[in-house]
Amino acid sequence: MLDLNKIGEINLPALDPHDALPGSHALLYTDWTVTEPQFDPEQLCARETVFTIGNGYLGTRGSFEEGFPQALPTTLIHGVYDDVPVIYTELANCPDWLSLMISVNGERFRLDRGEILHYERQLDLRHGLLSRSVRWRSPTGKTLDLEFQRFASLDDQHVLGLRCQITPIDCSGTLAEPFPWKIEVQSSLNGYPDTQGFDHWEQIDRGQIEQGTGQGVWLQVRTRSSHIELSMAVKLAVMGADASFQVTNAHGYSTLMSAFSAIAGQTISIEKVVTVFTSQDVEMPVQAAQDKLANLPAYGVLLDAHRQAWDAVWQHSDIEIEGDRTAQLVVRYNLFQLLISGSSHDVRVSIPAKTLSGLGYRGHIFWDTEIFILPFFTLTQPAIARSLLTYRYHTLEGARRKATHSGYQGAMFSWESAATGDEVTPRSSMPTDPYAEAVRIWCRDREIHLSADIAYAVWHYWQATGDDHWLRDYGAEIILDTAMFWMSRLEWHAQQERYELCGVIGADEYHEQVNNNAFTNRMVQWHLETAVAVYEWLQHAFPYQATALAKQLQLTAEHRLLWQTMIAKLYIPHDAKTGLIEQFEGFFQLQDIDLSKYEPRDRSMQAVLGIDETNQRQVLKQPDVLMLLYLMRDTQALPAHDNVLQKNWDYYAPRTDSTYGSSLTPAIHASLAANLGDAADAYKQFMQAALTDLKDNRGNTRDGIHGASAGGVWQAVVFGFGGIQLKDSAPIATPHLPPSWTRLKFKLNWRGTWHSFDLVPSPAQKPFSACRSSCN
Amino acid sequence: MLDLNKIGEINLPALDPHDALPGSHALLYTDWTVTEPQFDPEQLCARETVFTIGNGYLGTRGSFEEGFPQALPTTLIHGVYDDVPVIYTELANCPDWLSLMISVNGERFRLDRGEILHYERQLDLRHGLLSRSVRWRSPTGKTLDLEFQRFASLDDQHVLGLRCQITPIDCSGTLAEPFPWKIEVQSSLNGYPDTQGFDHWEQIDRGQIEQGTGQGVWLQVRTRSSHIELSMAVKLAVMGADASFQVTNAHGYSTLMSAFSAIAGQTISIEKVVTVFTSQDVEMPVQAAQDKLANLPAYGVLLDAHRQAWDAVWQHSDIEIEGDRTAQLVVRYNLFQLLISGSSHDVRVSIPAKTLSGLGYRGHIFWDTEIFILPFFTLTQPAIARSLLTYRYHTLEGARRKATHSGYQGAMFSWESAATGDEVTPRSSMPTDPYAEAVRIWCRDREIHLSADIAYAVWHYWQATGDDHWLRDYGAEIILDTAMFWMSRLEWHAQQERYELCGVIGADEYHEQVNNNAFTNRMVQWHLETAVAVYEWLQHAFPYQATALAKQLQLTAEHRLLWQTMIAKLYIPHDAKTGLIEQFEGFFQLQDIDLSKYEPRDRSMQAVLGIDETNQRQVLKQPDVLMLLYLMRDTQALPAHDNVLQKNWDYYAPRTDSTYGSSLTPAIHASLAANLGDAADAYKQFMQAALTDLKDNRGNTRDGIHGASAGGVWQAVVFGFGGIQLKDSAPIATPHLPPSWTRLKFKLNWRGTWHSFDLVPSPAQKPFSACRSSCN
Repeated sequence: MLDLNKIGEINLPALDPHDALPGSHALLYTDWTVTEPQFDPEQLCARETVFTIGNGYLGTRGSFEEGFPQALPTTLIHGVYDDVPVIYTELANCPDWLSLMISVNGERFRLDRGEILHYERQLDLRHGLLSRSVRWRSPTGKTLDLEFQRFASLDDQHVLGLRCQITPIDCSGTLAEPFPWKIEVQSSLNGYPDTQGFDHWEQIDRGQIEQGTGQGVWLQVRTRSSHIELSMAVKLAVMGADASFQVTNAHGYSTLMSAFSAIAGQTISIEKVVTVFTSQDVEMPVQAAQDKLANLPAYGVLLDAHRQAWDAVWQHSDIEIEGDRTAQLVVRYNLFQLLISGSSHDVRVSIPAKTLSGLGYRGHIFWDTEIFILPFFTLTQPAIARSLLTYRYHTLEGARRKATHSGYQGAMFSWESAATGDEVTPRSSMPTDPYAEAVRIWCRDREIHLSADIAYAVWHYWQATGDDHWLRDYGAEIILDTAMFWMSRLEWHAQQERYELCGVIGADEYHEQVNNNAFTNRMVQWHLETAVAVYEWLQHAFPYQATALAKQLQLTAEHRLLWQTMIAKLYIPHDAKTGLIEQFEGFFQLQDIDLSKYEPRDRSMQAVLGIDETNQRQVLKQPDVLMLLYLMRDTQALPAHDNVLQKNWDYYAPRTDSTYGSSLTPAIHASLAANLGDAADAYKQFMQAALTDLKDNRGNTRDGIHGASAGGVWQAVVFGFGGIQLKDSAPIATPHLPPSWTRLKFKLNWRGTWHSFDLVPSPAQKPFSACRSSCN
Repeated sequence: MLDLNKIGEINLPALDPHDALPGSHALLYTDWTVTEPQFDPEQLCARETVFTIGNGYLGTRGSFEEGFPQALPTTLIHGVYDDVPVIYTELANCPDWLSLMISVNGERFRLDRGEILHYERQLDLRHGLLSRSVRWRSPTGKTLDLEFQRFASLDDQHVLGLRCQITPIDCSGTLAEPFPWKIEVQSSLNGYPDTQGFDHWEQIDRGQIEQGTGQGVWLQVRTRSSHIELSMAVKLAVMGADASFQVTNAHGYSTLMSAFSAIAGQTISIEKVVTVFTSQDVEMPVQAAQDKLANLPAYGVLLDAHRQAWDAVWQHSDIEIEGDRTAQLVVRYNLFQLLISGSSHDVRVSIPAKTLSGLGYRGHIFWDTEIFILPFFTLTQPAIARSLLTYRYHTLEGARRKATHSGYQGAMFSWESAATGDEVTPRSSMPTDPYAEAVRIWCRDREIHLSADIAYAVWHYWQATGDDHWLRDYGAEIILDTAMFWMSRLEWHAQQERYELCGVIGADEYHEQVNNNAFTNRMVQWHLETAVAVYEWLQHAFPYQATALAKQLQLTAEHRLLWQTMIAKLYIPHDAKTGLIEQFEGFFQLQDIDLSKYEPRDRSMQAVLGIDETNQRQVLKQPDVLMLLYLMRDTQALPAHDNVLQKNWDYYAPRTDSTYGSSLTPAIHASLAANLGDAADAYKQFMQAALTDLKDNRGNTRDGIHGASAGGVWQAVVFGFGGIQLKDSAPIATPHLPPSWTRLKFKLNWRGTWHSFDLVPSPAQKPFSACRSSCN
């Protein structure tokens, strides 16, 4: 399993191949693989995240089949939420399908005992395959080679495959026991997965399947509160030995056991194939799991179909970089993590902030999806983008409940959203100290820009795809009913004769209660402009639906007139002379900060200064004015001023806590720096974003992949280094490649046509169009 | 297993034996057994509580060995707390040692399938044995007799025994498959028990034990936050068949399997013996569990030792009633539930409100223990009483932290207490509705009488036992440091020239913020009087320790003088003329209530009226003034007035929600009614208390035994019907027996001597002393 094509460590700058192994924590790579050459228990949980596999339906962390102390084996399925105290709901960790215990003459294979003579774990991004190669010597001296391989089928989302090849090694010098060895394999479905200490599953039933070719067992469980039923079925095949089988069907823990004898050099292959369904997919998951299992071809056939499915996906979504193999791999790694998180199969689910790779943020869905992740899908996998946006349509009722409970009209999307769209941001943190008061979490009430962010994503999806029917049937209602919310939320200040938005949190969460946040106000203004345009388009293109929707939303001509007034009178704090936008009213009066004076540091500025002090300083957790300028790059941002981006960049970038503030920052800064022509800074920020999880930059990779950062990496390459502008006619590139990049290739789907970009460094940095591709 | 001595249903009035089976929900009884003659899935969880067994170290609910949908198999061990959100900490449900799966030719025994031809479950109170007899016909027609028996050894707290006798029945008419049948038994330790959806355990390790006489497995787990390690080991013996054995040691789920053949009429006996230790008992629980298992005698020998231990316990703690077999059984049932909850082995634990029988109140410890449960132990098992009170000594540091955090001095015991004594009452209820605000729970701040209740229990323990050394080393510090708290908590009101306690909750929790609650104020006054007396006694008896303790607590002569002033000036609202005590200032001004107007009802008055309205009415959740008069019955309660008890009884009893308010009410009302000579009412209240769980009177027996009510039942018999007064010289009885009772016998230990009471109805109800018993 050793890949001889391995050429370097993931590090900055890209290393010479011969420097490949400076430390045990390093990962190795080729263009399509990430390899962990040594096992370091300290990195256990972060690497479980890094080696997550998935297929858009589920994600499974890279936990070991045989287990390890403190491991977090986790399989998450989109939409399988269940109630929990304080945070209301979370994605429930699903039964563990990985479990495979191997014992030799009664001695159990486990990496926390005995000796690891060889170890290598590799993720093949090209084909979504995780493999591990181990040579292990047991405490009594028995030595084994084990080759593990697993995949979550991209060809059939309900199929999972796992193979282990066992070879006893003849080490007669140290060997305590003569061959043949009795090898026992226990392959389980563990119905008791914990989700950060919660046990979401009731055991409903389990049973045995008699099959011609082997034995099978199934497990049926149900979430405690949401009553989502889930069933898994598993079969086991043993090749290369004459194996006996037995079933242990303990309550909630279905196990297939197989025993056989093996001699030195004999390789026995154990193939575990699992099917999984929930009551969100089919009416009778327990039947569906058994039926599918009964009709499955062999492991190898399943694997081939899976590989082919990946071929098709990369065909459209790959980015090729020449001259910088580090960048090549890390970009593909980030795209891989996005691709395994999104699917067009279920329009009632979306991608959580930590994808399906960990329990951070409990599977809740944020603006991360629409603003950071979605452009990649919109422009390379539009069917998935449409599905993700349709989730917001299906949660409009929850958004309406939130608006009503908050005293507003229309639909107010929830800062953290799950199955229903109701607000699931925890009301407060619950201290474990019994004498400490709970700390209020204000995002749920104040970080209102989300509704405009979603409208923004809807509009851009429509712009990119020209999907008029979707806009008519889904998108228009999202944009218009959230506009109804803004109409009720905007405050008229008679003295200043302007509309304002007070008491908000902007994109920058270091400032918890501000008035007239430029980002929010301009996004709202844009939202109302867009709402007017969308309604006019609908009236023109689909007059019947326009009337029906207006009636349904109680949207009148007077309302639309009022929107026009609001657009004209909405206050956005900025200095027309200097071009400097003020993040919010009074920001420039706050005490200034020089972040370099706090270096080196290993935690956020909020952790350094405390919540209150940070609130009082000109320090940002993430881009706010710059985020606005980034999102409005193809629109007219305020103020209309020469060099407005450069002016604001120079002011805000140095005041942003880009290392330990928000992981949303580096990719956006990379894009902007590239657009501003600062290739060196752009590359630095880009690599910081791209390595967020591969290097565990922020120390919290164990909680899951930073999905927004991964989406931002694609944007930094395409919109930053590629300099793509989405013109009405077509996307136009104005490349600003990093110095080492000799070539950058990617495809974009624009209004149904594929545009292939093949960019090379251009001293003049002149814009040019793509070759239209024949594929679509 | 059918007990031919069964004579009636638990019901009121005691039934003729021939009326025994009016409904499937009824329990049958003899003097020493409770029998469930039919299985009713509707009653599943309540009956799991009813059939709890235990040994003072752990409690195990009466869940079926083979499982049942929605069952709550639970084993709780004193002191094994772990963190949870909102309620801070809870007793963790421990690995399930009951699990025993039986399959016949691949068909699994389960009561939710096939046909139950005979069913009987019986708890033998005399010897702490739970048995179940089932004749079951499988869906394919195979019929089995199964006889289960289990016990938690009272002889050795770390040993658990479970036996199942299986007999295939020849029913050739319906039989689908010929004999012999292949019977498979899976006996597991399930390391994934849930605690209301929380999974508190990390799986550390598991392994196999090779023994001469059979096979064994062990399991090692650890609580996630408190890091308490627990280990169980189990062995399985099969008698009556030639059985094969196999081990499946899945992650967290250790299973011993045994397979054998059986023909019709052949009885095979399966004996499962389990050992259990935690890191609170020994340093290496995993070793201790294996070592003990290795040296255990056979099941039958263990059972004999267990029976003998119960003989010794009942020798002192039994109550014999003649003329009323219903009362006889139900009293013993309540005493049994207390006896299995208390132990003298661990002085750092105490009895939770729901004992170890369920997850209600999450294993937190309330005043229920000291005021309701403790007298039974103090007077019949003083070593257990001492241990329970010593728990409060060991939690003084937590009580001091609570005082400090609340701005007071000394030690302020926590309304809900667990491992450390810190306050673990939830700060607020957490609504599952994301738009609902949390509701503040005020007991944690305001229900301060607990510190005086504990002092009261300490004083009475000392009075009853004369245990001077314990008072010197433990009790004095409790009484004095809580007195220091009162000194800082009392408020001097200069205008009225009196001390007051404002903003409290009294014993009656329907009134959430009151001033000068008579119960609290008089208990505090008594507490300060007692503190003065205890310190004087200490100075006289142990001057060196008195000085050291005063120094440690910074208790000065001035403080003790101030206590005297406080005693003299503490305000207790009462009418010296009428003898009526006002529950708190202004209670008599609240709107009055006639509870009969709300009958019939099936919920509490707070549920009927709402929290705010209940606060405004003269309706009580539980006795408050009457509780004070009950506790002060051998002391001088205020006001010194003829018939003060009758006057207050007549006023407060009809205003108390005794059916659906607090379960603490009926037993106390029974005692008082008996003392007042109202035998009929006393008996009615007494039976209501005694049947709280056997009849699931309040609909929440599934959450666990009402421990305080069980303790109150003993008090109602001894202090109410027996009319025991604890005079300085000896306990004196003034019996007020219910009409049907022809004899009442019990023993009390008073200052080291056993006093046996043998009471018969006495028209004159004159007091008489006990015969001194020779046993001690």
